[in-house]
Amino acid sequence: MRPTPRAETFPVNTPAASQVFTTVLSQGPLPRLEVARRVGLSPAAVTKAVRPLIEAGYLVEGVDEEARPALGRPANLVRVDGGRALFIGVKVTGDEIIGVLTDLCCRIRVARHLPLPGRDPRTVLAGIAELTRKLLAETNGSTAPVLGLGIAVSGDVDRAEGTVRYSPFLEWRDVPLAELAAMTTGLPVTVDNDVRALTVAEQWFGAGVGLSDFAVVTVGAGIGCGLVVHGRVDAGAHGVAGEIGHVTVDPAGPLCHCGNRGCVEAIAGEAAILRQIREATGELPDAEAALALAREGVAAARDVYARAGEAIGRGIATVANLLGPERVIISGEGLAAYDLFAEQIRDAFVAAAFGSAAQCDVRTHPLPFDEWARGAAATAIQSFIGPDTSR
Amino acid sequence: MRPTPRAETFPVNTPAASQVFTTVLSQGPLPRLEVARRVGLSPAAVTKAVRPLIEAGYLVEGVDEEARPALGRPANLVRVDGGRALFIGVKVTGDEIIGVLTDLCCRIRVARHLPLPGRDPRTVLAGIAELTRKLLAETNGSTAPVLGLGIAVSGDVDRAEGTVRYSPFLEWRDVPLAELAAMTTGLPVTVDNDVRALTVAEQWFGAGVGLSDFAVVTVGAGIGCGLVVHGRVDAGAHGVAGEIGHVTVDPAGPLCHCGNRGCVEAIAGEAAILRQIREATGELPDAEAALALAREGVAAARDVYARAGEAIGRGIATVANLLGPERVIISGEGLAAYDLFAEQIRDAFVAAAFGSAAQCDVRTHPLPFDEWARGAAATAIQSFIGPDTSR
Repeated sequence: MRPTPRAETFPVNTPAASQVFTTVLSQGPLPRLEVARRVGLSPAAVTKAVRPLIEAGYLVEGVDEEARPALGRPANLVRVDGGRALFIGVKVTGDEIIGVLTDLCCRIRVARHLPLPGRDPRTVLAGIAELTRKLLAETNGSTAPVLGLGIAVSGDVDRAEGTVRYSPFLEWRDVPLAELAAMTTGLPVTVDNDVRALTVAEQWFGAGVGLSDFAVVTVGAGIGCGLVVHGRVDAGAHGVAGEIGHVTVDPAGPLCHCGNRGCVEAIAGEAAILRQIREATGELPDAEAALALAREGVAAARDVYARAGEAIGRGIATVANLLGPERVIISGEGLAAYDLFAEQIRDAFVAAAFGSAAQCDVRTHPLPFDEWARGAAATAIQSFIGPDTSR
Repeated sequence: MRPTPRAETFPVNTPAASQVFTTVLSQGPLPRLEVARRVGLSPAAVTKAVRPLIEAGYLVEGVDEEARPALGRPANLVRVDGGRALFIGVKVTGDEIIGVLTDLCCRIRVARHLPLPGRDPRTVLAGIAELTRKLLAETNGSTAPVLGLGIAVSGDVDRAEGTVRYSPFLEWRDVPLAELAAMTTGLPVTVDNDVRALTVAEQWFGAGVGLSDFAVVTVGAGIGCGLVVHGRVDAGAHGVAGEIGHVTVDPAGPLCHCGNRGCVEAIAGEAAILRQIREATGELPDAEAALALAREGVAAARDVYARAGEAIGRGIATVANLLGPERVIISGEGLAAYDLFAEQIRDAFVAAAFGSAAQCDVRTHPLPFDEWARGAAATAIQSFIGPDTSR
């Protein structure tokens, strides 16, 4: 087995250089002049920022052969050499760990799943270590070093401290996961909330590129929301933010695990949908069977999805009314039911959006489960590049 | 009458200098070393930033005689000379214009009201011009120049463009108010949404000083909310943000003017409260009489305020769950009823706040109507100091 690679430092030490690199990473390849325009720096400042990054191999510059014009001078483009460095992203769920190996541009090279025999920190850490070893072994053919490990966990996570403060799903309180995982893997570790990690991936490498205000709404077991405001992912002063799942849709609605009634999650979360279908049809379906029932036209099952869509649409409208994002990206494994509630999401959103908030671009982005792990890798890339790049 | 003063330029041209001045303005007087620590600059950089500001008279430095220690060297403090410049703030309501003359520290020197015979742009502009003339006349004794006029209007306002895009209250669409008011008054003009203007005043001169994430909730004819996220006031990508008044509390509740049912504003706005008291008691009270009824112990009236408090508390919890602010400041003329619904606001907030979002510091700040105009003056001060200071 390949030895654990040694940590390498990124040759960027000014906010300007960091911004230049992030812009090329998210929006490149770009001509230098265009980089200068987008980050609001002089071309000379961009040249100064770019030099050490080219020397260290993180950036390359050259003619884009595919885009060579028939006439005139071809554009010299700056782009990130994705193969220069590798990262590992891991998402911890209740019963398995999903890991991906990505390049510096957050493109997945390998994905692996590992069943999780227990949820206590020791078992989860052992699983993370094993999955990391397997993914490191996959880099054998590559000379690129693995420069960071990102771990995504649902719940209240303090990224700066590297601590899982409270994860109801794992039943963890105050677990210093970053420190523990760094000891067992030898890699620099970033720990973040899973929805925020996914939001970082969208901000840097997805449908949020170039937007200063957008939201990612995840639909699945829980209903979550990642918010980018003024170009930065919002984490809340007390570790809670984006709790769209606990926006009240109906105070007389079903009881939620948070103690209130009629939260979005109590109507549109996976468990809530299955419970309501059971109550309405007397059947005991799993997620797939529930979808099949509704698609076969069982009215009671269709109604449950319709109500779920309405609740999600209202939740999104609340986000839009309070924050006015440019775009809302709906994602998550619950999108499997999208054909059953897309119309209701749209209608409820439009009805509840206030004034020009309805102009918000609401779109979907299908989310294979590996994407959660890719989000974790994105946070590791972000940490490697530097603390100022999240602005 | 004193001639319209000529515009003066603020001697600050770097983001660092702007940050130094804003810090002293909001948090001073402070020793230079402490300024350096708070803005994250070297003491030398602070000294460099401070020099032209002292030369131009905006900052003064000296021993704080009141705080002179019995032993040891007295601290040399930097502070803003509030009397160096004056600003005018104007709030336009449906039936009057309220204006204040403030110093550079946003302390009110004079406040004046002017009844408004109509709501069309021409009438409102004439009123703003007259009120501005009267306030300028009040500066006679002072040598300080008036350096800006801020105008606060409810509705969708594009501050960068200086345009009122849509104000339902005034029935205006796309009125280039900043340009028009600059022509009639000869002053540099800033136009902003009234709740955002109030939020700027809290951020720079009030209960939001030093906080990077907080919210101002205004209770009155409407229920509004100003949000500061990552140290900047949020205006939304489409001009709508902070619409806490249209958070749904009860989908089966009373019809709201926005077309939905059971919005916070449809339950807790002034008109909604009066309507509900009328329905419950058969009486036709005005705001004051309604308060009196409830304070006399008329149960039906008390219930209406209790439900209003519950709706406001739920709305605040929604803001806390989505954004996780450090503090929520409840303000507005509706606070006159605070004794009647404080408990319900608190209880509903705690019940609906998710996890550690309940740690948010919810407090009240009584708001005389002049404060709205002071908010407008704060935006004028902010514009004068420079565009980068809102970060």
